[in-house]
Amino acid sequence: MAEACEFCASPGGPVLWQNDSCRVVRVDEPDYPGFVRVILNRHAREMDDLQEAERAALMSVVFAVEAAVREAMRPDKMNLASLGNMTPHVHWHVIPRFRDDRHFPNPIWAAPQRDRGPPHAEREQRAAGLAAAILRRIAG
Amino acid sequence: MAEACEFCASPGGPVLWQNDSCRVVRVDEPDYPGFVRVILNRHAREMDDLQEAERAALMSVVFAVEAAVREAMRPDKMNLASLGNMTPHVHWHVIPRFRDDRHFPNPIWAAPQRDRGPPHAEREQRAAGLAAAILRRIAG
Repeated sequence: MAEACEFCASPGGPVLWQNDSCRVVRVDEPDYPGFVRVILNRHAREMDDLQEAERAALMSVVFAVEAAVREAMRPDKMNLASLGNMTPHVHWHVIPRFRDDRHFPNPIWAAPQRDRGPPHAEREQRAAGLAAAILRRIAG
Repeated sequence: MAEACEFCASPGGPVLWQNDSCRVVRVDEPDYPGFVRVILNRHAREMDDLQEAERAALMSVVFAVEAAVREAMRPDKMNLASLGNMTPHVHWHVIPRFRDDRHFPNPIWAAPQRDRGPPHAEREQRAAGLAAAILRRIAG
């Protein structure tokens, strides 16, 4: 537990799935329905700070979540990233990308390529199936 | 092999290390000495398209490279990302980040936070030791 660490102090979003070592949370980002984060429960700064077994266990969740997001959202591309410059507590961004999304083909952190459109009703609906898809993939 | 795929048609940069399944290349980006990419040799679109053993083998290289870059560059933070929106051929960005780098604490794809300074002579020198550090980590 690190003082003043956002991901030690709070879940970081609505929890879709969790076990003893990590949790999967929904990211509240209107431009990106289906965007989730996989957050290590204990405080560690870098993937390189994890023991091999812990790292492998975390990545098996990340890739199960990638598969679940891909299945539920049917995106044009999946993006995975572990950055942590602002919150140096190991976490992975798992982001479904669409050709017509706000930043495509750039990363979501780059300058927008187009205006925010109307809410993505169909994508929001698909995202509602994410918790079930994650559970299936992790159980399977 | 996919037609018109940049990473099928060319190595993607000076090769620092390689085996049958992937290669590690230096990225020519003056703002980011020590930035490397790990590129899967065969064409695959998503990590999710890899079989589990192939995925695990690739990630063991990615994490060995992360450790080597951290050791050689001594950055403030490591960033890892697999995006592929422009070149949908599995590859990982492994980026050493420094508090005074051009975009910190934002991702390197975001708007710059500060002007480009003079060349980072000391960091360029550290980056010259990367191939040796990668070899040690992967052999180890």
